Amino acid sequence: MSWRWALARRVAALGATSGGGDGATAQAQRLFSSAAALLGRHPPPPSPPHYQIRSKVVGCRGATFVSSRWLHDAQYQVRQDGLSRSEEQQDPFELVADELSLLANRLRSMVAAEVPKLASAAEYFFKVGAEGKRFRPTVLLLMASALKFPLSDSTEVGVLTILANKLRTRQQNIAEITEMIHVASLLHDDVLDDADTRRGVSSLNCIMGNKLSVLAGDFLLSRACVALAALGNTEVVSLMATAVEHLVTGETMQISTSREQRRSMDYYLQKTYYKTASLISNSCKAVAILAGHTADVSMLAYEYGRNLGLAFQLIDDVLDFTGTSASLGKGSLTDIRHGIITAPMLYAMEEFPQLHEVVDRGFDNPANVELALDYLQKSRGIEKTKELAREHANRAIKAIEALPDSDDEDVLTSRRALIDITERVITRTK
Amino acid sequence: MSWRWALARRVAALGATSGGGDGATAQAQRLFSSAAALLGRHPPPPSPPHYQIRSKVVGCRGATFVSSRWLHDAQYQVRQDGLSRSEEQQDPFELVADELSLLANRLRSMVAAEVPKLASAAEYFFKVGAEGKRFRPTVLLLMASALKFPLSDSTEVGVLTILANKLRTRQQNIAEITEMIHVASLLHDDVLDDADTRRGVSSLNCIMGNKLSVLAGDFLLSRACVALAALGNTEVVSLMATAVEHLVTGETMQISTSREQRRSMDYYLQKTYYKTASLISNSCKAVAILAGHTADVSMLAYEYGRNLGLAFQLIDDVLDFTGTSASLGKGSLTDIRHGIITAPMLYAMEEFPQLHEVVDRGFDNPANVELALDYLQKSRGIEKTKELAREHANRAIKAIEALPDSDDEDVLTSRRALIDITERVITRTK
Repeated sequence: MSWRWALARRVAALGATSGGGDGATAQAQRLFSSAAALLGRHPPPPSPPHYQIRSKVVGCRGATFVSSRWLHDAQYQVRQDGLSRSEEQQDPFELVADELSLLANRLRSMVAAEVPKLASAAEYFFKVGAEGKRFRPTVLLLMASALKFPLSDSTEVGVLTILANKLRTRQQNIAEITEMIHVASLLHDDVLDDADTRRGVSSLNCIMGNKLSVLAGDFLLSRACVALAALGNTEVVSLMATAVEHLVTGETMQISTSREQRRSMDYYLQKTYYKTASLISNSCKAVAILAGHTADVSMLAYEYGRNLGLAFQLIDDVLDFTGTSASLGKGSLTDIRHGIITAPMLYAMEEFPQLHEVVDRGFDNPANVELALDYLQKSRGIEKTKELAREHANRAIKAIEALPDSDDEDVLTSRRALIDITERVITRTK
Repeated sequence: MSWRWALARRVAALGATSGGGDGATAQAQRLFSSAAALLGRHPPPPSPPHYQIRSKVVGCRGATFVSSRWLHDAQYQVRQDGLSRSEEQQDPFELVADELSLLANRLRSMVAAEVPKLASAAEYFFKVGAEGKRFRPTVLLLMASALKFPLSDSTEVGVLTILANKLRTRQQNIAEITEMIHVASLLHDDVLDDADTRRGVSSLNCIMGNKLSVLAGDFLLSRACVALAALGNTEVVSLMATAVEHLVTGETMQISTSREQRRSMDYYLQKTYYKTASLISNSCKAVAILAGHTADVSMLAYEYGRNLGLAFQLIDDVLDFTGTSASLGKGSLTDIRHGIITAPMLYAMEEFPQLHEVVDRGFDNPANVELALDYLQKSRGIEKTKELAREHANRAIKAIEALPDSDDEDVLTSRRALIDITERVITRTK
C-alpha cells in the first residue's frame, strides 16, 4: 500500500474523529476528496476563483489559511493534518541527528588537526545545533534515504549491506562537501572592504581577521575539491563545482547591481537561485546520481532542492523585515540597510511606483529606510512573498511525491521528513 | 640518433672550433668525455673532492663556474654551451607564444564576459608579458610537447591528428586551470588584515578592495573546478585539488610560524614546496597523465616541476635581497620586512648563531633589519642558496633527460626548451 494512500486514509480518519464538530468533519471530508484527487485517484475538482481568506479555521490544529487558491489550500491543509500527526512522532532533524554529529565532528577534527591555526575558525564552522548549520546536511541525508533502492530478494543480503553502507558513506561525503562549501562561502562573504568598517555586525572575519577568514574559506574549498575528486564521479564533481561557481556569481550579482537590476524580480530570483538554491539542488542531485538513479529521478531530487532553497530564502527575506535580531541570529533589516532589495520590497514597488525613487536614493539615510518600510507596511509585499514561497514549497513537495513508489518504511519516513522540512521552512519564525 | 648524442657531439664540435685557443680545446675535450660519461656511454670519472672555483673560464662563452662539484660543473658547462647554441635559435617562451596568447585571451574574455564586475580584475589577471604570468603555462605547454607520443605508422594519420589535437586542447586546459589557480591564490594572498595597512605595496586588493579580490579569486577557483571536472579524469582532478590545498596550507604555514619553525630549513622547504612547487609539479604530472603516459613518465614530469618550482622560489628569495624593487616588480626586502625568514637568512643563521636572537626580535624595527642584513653580507647565505637552487635545477634537468628517447624534432626542441627555462630560472635577475 503506497505511502500516498496511507496519507489519504489518515485524512479520512482525521475527518471522522476531529474534535472540531460537524463543520470540521464536513471540511475534512472535502479535504479527503481533494487529497484523493490530488493524489491521482480522481480528476481534481474545477479550481475555484482566487480569493482571500484571512481567518483561522477552528478545529484544524490552528492551521492558518493564507490567501490561497483552493488546490494549494487543500494540499496545505492535508499535509498540515497529515504531518501534524507524524510530526509528533519524528522530528526530521532527529532522524539523522547521530549521522549529523558524526559529520560535524569529522569536519571539525579534520580542520583542527590539519591546520591548527584554523582550529579557531573550525569552531565557528560546524557548531552543531545552530539551525542554519544542520539544514543542508539534514536534507541531503534524508534525500539519500528517500531514494534508497529497494533490496531485491535475489541478491545475497551480505553483499548488499556492504554496498548499501559504501553508498551511504559516499552520500555522507556529499553532505560534508556541501557543508564545507557552504561555510567557505560564509567566511568569504563576511570579508569586508576596508571602506566598510564593521557596523556592529559580528562577522566571521572580525573574530579572525580578513586574512584568516579568506584562508579558512580557501582551505575548506580545497578540501571539498579533494573529497569530490575522491568520489571518482566526474558528473558529481561537475555539479558541485557549478554550485561553487553559482555561489560566487550570486555574491557578485549582489554587490554589483544596476538601477534596473535592483528593481527586477527576475534578477532577484536568479541571484537567489545562485546564492542559496543551487548548492542544495545540485547536492540533492549528486546524492541521486551516486545511488545510480535515472536522470528523471535525479531531476526530481534536483527540483526538490531547487524549490526548497528558493522557499527558504524567500522566507529568510521576509523574516529580515518581520523577525527580530535575537530570533534571526543576525541583525534584522540587514538587507535593506545594505541596500539589498528583496522580494517583499519588490512586490511593494509594484503596488507603489513612487517607492522606486526611494529605493534609487539608497538607504544610507535611516529616514529613507523608514519611508520604505511604511510603503511595505501598506502593501501586500510580505504576503505575496509568502505565497511565492508557498508555491515553491508545493513544487518541492510535488517532486517528492513523484518519486518512484516504495514500501520500505525507512524510505517512507524520510520522504515524510523531507516534506516536513519543507513545511517548517515556510512556517519558521527564525 | 637520440638527442643525448646530438648534445654530446655538439660539445665535441665546440671543442674543435672554439676560439679559446689550446686551453679551451683541451677543456672542451675533457667536457666531452665527462658529458659522454654523464650520458651513460662510459662510467663517470671518480668525482673530485668538493672545492671552490670562483673564476670565469675564458673561451667558454663567459660561463661562470659557481663553487661546484666537478660533475655538476661539467653538466652545467655542457648545457651552458649546448644551450647557448640553441638559445640563439629558440627562446622557450617564443616557442609557445601563440598558444599562450590564445590562452590568455580566452581566460580574460571568459572572466570579463561572464561577470562584468570582475572584468577590471581580469585585466590584472592575465597581463601577457609579465614574466610571472607566462612561466607556468609555458612550462606546461612545453611539457605537453616534450611528452608527445611518437606517431606509430600503422594508425591512420587522420585519426591520430584528431586525437593529437583533442589531447593538445585538454593539455591546454591544464595550463589554463593552473593559471586560474595561480592567479586566484595571488588575489587571496594579497587580502590583508585590517591591522596591516597597505605598506606602499600596490597589492591587488588595494586596487579593487578586499571583497572583490576575494570574489575574483573564488570565481577563478570555481571556474578551475568546473574546467577540471569537464576533463573527466578523476586522478587529474585529485592532483589539482591537492595543489589548491597545498597553496592554502603553504600560506597558512607562512602566517603562523612558531619560533622553532622560523629557524628550520626543513619547514621553509616544505612551505616552499606547498606555496610554489606543488602547483607546477602536479600540473606537469597532470599533463603526462592526460596523455596516457606510464606512472614512471608521469613521475618524471612531476619531478621536473617540483625541482623547477623549488629552484624558482629559492632564486626568488635570493633576489628579494639582491634585486631592486623595479627589477623585481614588487618591493625588495619584502620577506624580511614581513618577518618571513627565507633560505639566505637561514644559512646565515647557521654560520652566525647570534643572528637567531635578532630574528626572534622580529623586524618591525628597521635597525634590526639592517643588523640581519649585515650578518647575511658576511655569511655565504646567498651563495649557498644559489647552490641549492642549482642542485634542484640539475635534478629538474635530469628528469627531462630521463624521459623516453624520441626522434621527433618537436619533442627534442621542447625538451631543450624546458632545460633552457630551468637555466633561466637560475640565472635570472628579476
